[in-house]
Amino acid sequence: MLDKKFSPERQSAFAARFEAQKIAFGPVVFQCVRYAWKRGMLQALADTGHSGLSVAEMAAGGRWTEYALKVALESCLSAGVVYLRDGAYVLDKVGYCVLTDSITQINLDFNHDVCYQGMYDLDRSLDAEQPLGLAALGDWPTLYQGLSALPEPAKGSWFAFDHHYSDTSFPEIFPDVFATAPRRIMDIGANTGKFANAALSYHAGVQLHLVDLERQLAVAEQTLTGAGVRGRAHLHACDLLDDGAPLPLGMDLIWMSQFLSCFSEVAIASILRRVEQALGPNGQVLIMDTFWDRQQYDIAAYCLINTSPYFTAMASGNSKIYQSTDYIRLAQAAGLELLTTRDGIGYCHSLLRFGRAGARCD
Amino acid sequence: MLDKKFSPERQSAFAARFEAQKIAFGPVVFQCVRYAWKRGMLQALADTGHSGLSVAEMAAGGRWTEYALKVALESCLSAGVVYLRDGAYVLDKVGYCVLTDSITQINLDFNHDVCYQGMYDLDRSLDAEQPLGLAALGDWPTLYQGLSALPEPAKGSWFAFDHHYSDTSFPEIFPDVFATAPRRIMDIGANTGKFANAALSYHAGVQLHLVDLERQLAVAEQTLTGAGVRGRAHLHACDLLDDGAPLPLGMDLIWMSQFLSCFSEVAIASILRRVEQALGPNGQVLIMDTFWDRQQYDIAAYCLINTSPYFTAMASGNSKIYQSTDYIRLAQAAGLELLTTRDGIGYCHSLLRFGRAGARCD
Repeated sequence: MLDKKFSPERQSAFAARFEAQKIAFGPVVFQCVRYAWKRGMLQALADTGHSGLSVAEMAAGGRWTEYALKVALESCLSAGVVYLRDGAYVLDKVGYCVLTDSITQINLDFNHDVCYQGMYDLDRSLDAEQPLGLAALGDWPTLYQGLSALPEPAKGSWFAFDHHYSDTSFPEIFPDVFATAPRRIMDIGANTGKFANAALSYHAGVQLHLVDLERQLAVAEQTLTGAGVRGRAHLHACDLLDDGAPLPLGMDLIWMSQFLSCFSEVAIASILRRVEQALGPNGQVLIMDTFWDRQQYDIAAYCLINTSPYFTAMASGNSKIYQSTDYIRLAQAAGLELLTTRDGIGYCHSLLRFGRAGARCD
Repeated sequence: MLDKKFSPERQSAFAARFEAQKIAFGPVVFQCVRYAWKRGMLQALADTGHSGLSVAEMAAGGRWTEYALKVALESCLSAGVVYLRDGAYVLDKVGYCVLTDSITQINLDFNHDVCYQGMYDLDRSLDAEQPLGLAALGDWPTLYQGLSALPEPAKGSWFAFDHHYSDTSFPEIFPDVFATAPRRIMDIGANTGKFANAALSYHAGVQLHLVDLERQLAVAEQTLTGAGVRGRAHLHACDLLDDGAPLPLGMDLIWMSQFLSCFSEVAIASILRRVEQALGPNGQVLIMDTFWDRQQYDIAAYCLINTSPYFTAMASGNSKIYQSTDYIRLAQAAGLELLTTRDGIGYCHSLLRFGRAGARCD
């Protein structure tokens, strides 16, 4: 069974009490650090290198009041973002990350622009398993209906966050996709057709079956037509949440990338049952996703785990970032057997390969 | 000049990057930990001691869904609030603080019920030096006008937080107050009359002059009448923000407790000028307040520093938790001289004693 601990070994009660206050003031520190970054205070300190600037020196330029500088920079001081030397603020290492690391910036923007207000209703959302925090952005049953109508800056920050997680993995996975020489491939959750297009271009002998909602398929069709590969693509409009909606049969390979995490465990179980039925005799299932239990570094697990509350309060109310063991358990219940795993794809993706249970013994 | 650093010595770039993500997901972790505490998940784990409970065992009672348990407890895991052993969640030391430490609980409640929503507007509030986040709670120019009308749970959480900081210090400070045998004492910011009542009861020979807004004095008068000390109390209704409003003169001692931090530096300077004029020949000024630069432990400085944004976004828009050096600088400009300091009063209070500049040389 799983053992996991993020706290340091031999943590003192005193240190733990400090950590508890860091949690309790987390929203406040978040807003102050964000302000110091957005208003250019951190950049101004970076520009001075190790000498730093006093509050009076910074205020002298007329860009910030002493009051705003003190409130923001003192909070930054308490969070290790800056430090004081001879009365001058100097950028500390955490501040350097805020200022230069795009992942940190994407996370800050996403959590402020998309999640912050709605996260106030996380408690009601978890109780009801409905994204009740989404009302802060608009009036939709789930975020997926509202995605194209999201107000800025929420929309820009959402796509930056989404692309950060999804776009780094494609180039390296085609050897895996074509390892069993599949001819009939099905892409469930085809979205904009990015994977289908790349796969059709990768191998001229394959037929690609795209499954998604009608409006997504319309987008994907444009992508494929534009790329000149529409002839080998087959579009299957389907609401996967409908347990009775069947999938086309006889597939050599079924591909699902960053897709199942949008659903509840009950829905995932239903999808996997239909996936198993759609496989041809030696068909396989490839699932690429972000699993917090398969990360080499705690920092990645930390970010993934704390993305789940977004799914609760803002997106669907009942989905999350899963452990790989959740998918494996649900796949086994659907008659599938884990064949291989591969980690470290892109920033934080893993690839799970399944076959029909017992198929290797035939 | 001041040197101060909250980050650990020799922090690696990798560790700093993790800290940056803790800031970026601070609001999310805050809400998850709060939920696990409020819904009794942490208590249920505490009740099992070191053996802990699996998600399935916790869900079996019907009190929580597996989904809510996983979202909340995984975030708690990532924050060191719980840990996993043999697949069972066990309360970790930070979780023990959340569950048992009243200060942690007061901070969590205050930051959620009073500050969370308005803190979204910290940036606009700092830019305008107006408490624009207060609109989340009601329509008042500052929180002080709205205090008695605050909706619950904001009201209860505000008073719990305020009392936590103010109520622990009184018993130990009367030897300081009476060290110079004052007969005419003025309490500026008399509020409910708590100090005035205690001082009048402490020494039968003193006259107490209470200065505050009219409506506060009405409350204080009830307190003093009820205690039978109204006869030696003198009420002076005064808006201290009015730079032209004079104070009664000839005071042996002027007392200000947790009062100046409600004002901007400009207003503090004005108040201290009038305070200096109100002193009798050998009069002194005693200021008791919470200064983040005079704390023995970083944990106290951290909590105080991160209370300032509440003053910005929710309370006044231009006040904060100051450094003692701010008060001393402003007092010197008003013709006052620092005589003594005493720290470690109550949880985190310090006492600054001032006389007229040069008075000791007369």
